[in-house]
Amino acid sequence: MTISSYDRLVQLGKETRLVADAQALLGWDQEVLLPRSGVSYRAEQMAWFSGWLHSKFTSEEVGEWISAADAEVTSPEQKANLREWRHDFDRETELPEALVREFAETQVHAKSSWAEARAKNDFSLFAPSLTRLIEICREQAERWGYEEHLYDALIDKFERGGTTNVLTATLGSLRRDLIPVVEAAVAKPLPDTSKLEAYYPIAAQEAFNREVAESIGFDFSAGRIDTAVHPFCSGMAPYDTRLTTRYDKADFCSSLFGVLHETGHGLYEQGLRKEFRGQPVGNSASLGVHESQSRLWENHVGRSRGFWNKWLPVAAGYFPNLKSVTLDEMVTHVNRVELSHIRVESDEVTYDLHVLLRFEMEKALFSGDLKVDDIPGEWNSRFESYFRLPVKKDSEGCLQDIHWSMGIFGYFPTYSLGNINAAHLAVAAVRQEPGLTHAMDNGDYSGLLAWMRTHIHEKGSLYLPSDLITEAAGAPADTAALIDHLKLRYL
Amino acid sequence: MTISSYDRLVQLGKETRLVADAQALLGWDQEVLLPRSGVSYRAEQMAWFSGWLHSKFTSEEVGEWISAADAEVTSPEQKANLREWRHDFDRETELPEALVREFAETQVHAKSSWAEARAKNDFSLFAPSLTRLIEICREQAERWGYEEHLYDALIDKFERGGTTNVLTATLGSLRRDLIPVVEAAVAKPLPDTSKLEAYYPIAAQEAFNREVAESIGFDFSAGRIDTAVHPFCSGMAPYDTRLTTRYDKADFCSSLFGVLHETGHGLYEQGLRKEFRGQPVGNSASLGVHESQSRLWENHVGRSRGFWNKWLPVAAGYFPNLKSVTLDEMVTHVNRVELSHIRVESDEVTYDLHVLLRFEMEKALFSGDLKVDDIPGEWNSRFESYFRLPVKKDSEGCLQDIHWSMGIFGYFPTYSLGNINAAHLAVAAVRQEPGLTHAMDNGDYSGLLAWMRTHIHEKGSLYLPSDLITEAAGAPADTAALIDHLKLRYL
Repeated sequence: MTISSYDRLVQLGKETRLVADAQALLGWDQEVLLPRSGVSYRAEQMAWFSGWLHSKFTSEEVGEWISAADAEVTSPEQKANLREWRHDFDRETELPEALVREFAETQVHAKSSWAEARAKNDFSLFAPSLTRLIEICREQAERWGYEEHLYDALIDKFERGGTTNVLTATLGSLRRDLIPVVEAAVAKPLPDTSKLEAYYPIAAQEAFNREVAESIGFDFSAGRIDTAVHPFCSGMAPYDTRLTTRYDKADFCSSLFGVLHETGHGLYEQGLRKEFRGQPVGNSASLGVHESQSRLWENHVGRSRGFWNKWLPVAAGYFPNLKSVTLDEMVTHVNRVELSHIRVESDEVTYDLHVLLRFEMEKALFSGDLKVDDIPGEWNSRFESYFRLPVKKDSEGCLQDIHWSMGIFGYFPTYSLGNINAAHLAVAAVRQEPGLTHAMDNGDYSGLLAWMRTHIHEKGSLYLPSDLITEAAGAPADTAALIDHLKLRYL
Repeated sequence: MTISSYDRLVQLGKETRLVADAQALLGWDQEVLLPRSGVSYRAEQMAWFSGWLHSKFTSEEVGEWISAADAEVTSPEQKANLREWRHDFDRETELPEALVREFAETQVHAKSSWAEARAKNDFSLFAPSLTRLIEICREQAERWGYEEHLYDALIDKFERGGTTNVLTATLGSLRRDLIPVVEAAVAKPLPDTSKLEAYYPIAAQEAFNREVAESIGFDFSAGRIDTAVHPFCSGMAPYDTRLTTRYDKADFCSSLFGVLHETGHGLYEQGLRKEFRGQPVGNSASLGVHESQSRLWENHVGRSRGFWNKWLPVAAGYFPNLKSVTLDEMVTHVNRVELSHIRVESDEVTYDLHVLLRFEMEKALFSGDLKVDDIPGEWNSRFESYFRLPVKKDSEGCLQDIHWSMGIFGYFPTYSLGNINAAHLAVAAVRQEPGLTHAMDNGDYSGLLAWMRTHIHEKGSLYLPSDLITEAAGAPADTAALIDHLKLRYL
């Protein structure tokens, strides 16, 4: 019995995914558990995995299977798989294995030098490995090719089909409409938070977060929540999705909103079709789609009145000081708007300004207009002009985010795409199923999750990301829904 | 420039060890963190790693390198490496890859069915996978070959050079000398423990255990302690050694002695020569030697008067009820002797009786005298005859230990070898460096660790295990030192 070329690709996808998933555990472990002295060896291990995966996927026979499979595929899933395999193969084969290994190894060292630089507020500790990562990414982009901007080739890694020009236009339009909302929102006096000032024990926060995450659908028999410096979600196996958060003993909302955000990612990972693990249609569509899920649960759900109507009494069971806090006060508290330094802690109104700043910095880094050593100065002056706040230390400035230390460039704009997509999908879901509004007002999100499962999660990478959003919502995403949402909630 | 066959083996050893170390993280994670639903996929991953490692190490060219390297090796380290590589190659090549993969996969499932069977006290849940593991091990042993007993081939996996006959003789002699000590020790009235009855918060236990482990030399920048059902130590990378323990809120000694035991293993792992990682001389010598280190720190150190002289006041800082406990009472408490059900919680006098029972069961299983379904009945009747206690449930009987669920047979006798070796080495160390006695009486173990580093840890697998002990101690191990130690301490 002969096996088709397409089936060989399926087998290869299964094996490489299984190995990549093992590598994902090593990466997760590095963030959460790895002893300090273990970093160098872990770097060697990560490099080995990257090298093995690269060589496995770029062998000549894989190219032959991809060509031959053209005549074999019939279903939409098969065609989508082949479309993505071809795209990945074409890109991977442009990269020499030595570069792939060096990238993986440099990432591990850069992450640890970033963590040290951030702790010591000393950008110069991070500059050498950042410089090397940018050089490697530039070489990758040159090898992959691009039409207009070198940066396009990097964006495509995270958002298939995304380009510098389209993103500049979208984010520019968002900024234009956002500025008046920001101005009006920050002009309001900040609410009095004295009743919320208390000691929130970590164990109680963990238990409350877990109850919330479980209630909105996160399956703990196939996932975990742990602690890490930088909150993230890793879907490291079909039944193993791990979230991380970090705790502030003076503010239970910090870890809660981190968990809501990562639970959004986790629900997406848990909602992918398991039988397609190892095939593109079993993968998430893009980071801009992934972020639509996290922002949906964090903002549209977690900052809503309906959510707190249900959860404030429960929270008061864990944190007795909340017994004296009214629903109005709680909702006002979680929707306070303020110009501040840290992106991941910022409110949903000012959040996109942070993203825009990072996007502009990256464009300048890759166009050659900005040198690594000039990053702190450039960041601080741009930040002050956007946020009217001085940056006193790099840990609350250019060193606040982990992404660059992971060699991730072209990723930040997907955060704003996520916000745009989340609002657009939320409107579409309610329009298609009007009963959702009532349910959500009462803290019942099962219908919302079911809609996302059907229209987003289970689709995987069947469509390109922008097509997926159009297909699900009935119209292409634009910034209108997000701006409407913010105006309604904050003005 | 041509590369020698020996150097190719060194390169291969480095790569395969790096990958095996990644697999070790997957194994550790399964015990400590893995969500329940993730088990099947983890089994597939473990099987992949085992298959890859097997095929990498059994290729024809490896056999050619081993033959050719004979003429190249000169140093004792090189000769030892080649001796072990040849031994491993000869055994590995006897195993078809399908069997290797099936073994790895069956282990993962068996571990989880053992855990369930143990929790539910239902041996029948575990019986099918245990049966399959025994079949696989029997097939392995047949393929490896043996002189007298099939079981010899299994023992050799854990204790190079060990045989059923030699172990039966050694353990038989140990039993003969032990029985009168046990009889006399259990005849003494049990000490009054009422002053030790208290609530011991887990966080305080963790902090105390950590202080102890760090003080006796465990390097936390290159290691961790976590929680798992079954305490173990995994040296999963040159600078990443992880211990686990479990906590009893009513008895801080339970986790402490677990940690002391695993710290002994961990010190050995941390003391192996890093530059030889991936070569046999960078590996521990055998399980019987490994266990000598864990039992040394658990028993010879942890149950001694000198240890508590130093640590009782410190412990009282963590657990205030201990302030009223005298040194005499504490030493008496940790040296109480009692016939009991659980091996890992048993005292050092009765411990070897547990091992002996398991050893006899394994011999019977592999000689064909005992069927899997008859294990609980056979265990219970033998147990009662040894310990004069009925076994009321399998979780305190034949299901108490994880080893069989990992397909590990021939391992248990190394626990008694460990006790024999520990006593033998402790006597030798003090004889060679008389100053050690005074230091240890004052809770200073740096000299003891230094002696073990030099004579055991840094030697790796340079010698076969029995030769290593002879070389270190100046005489072959026998049971005399252990019996003398027990008589001195307990009679």
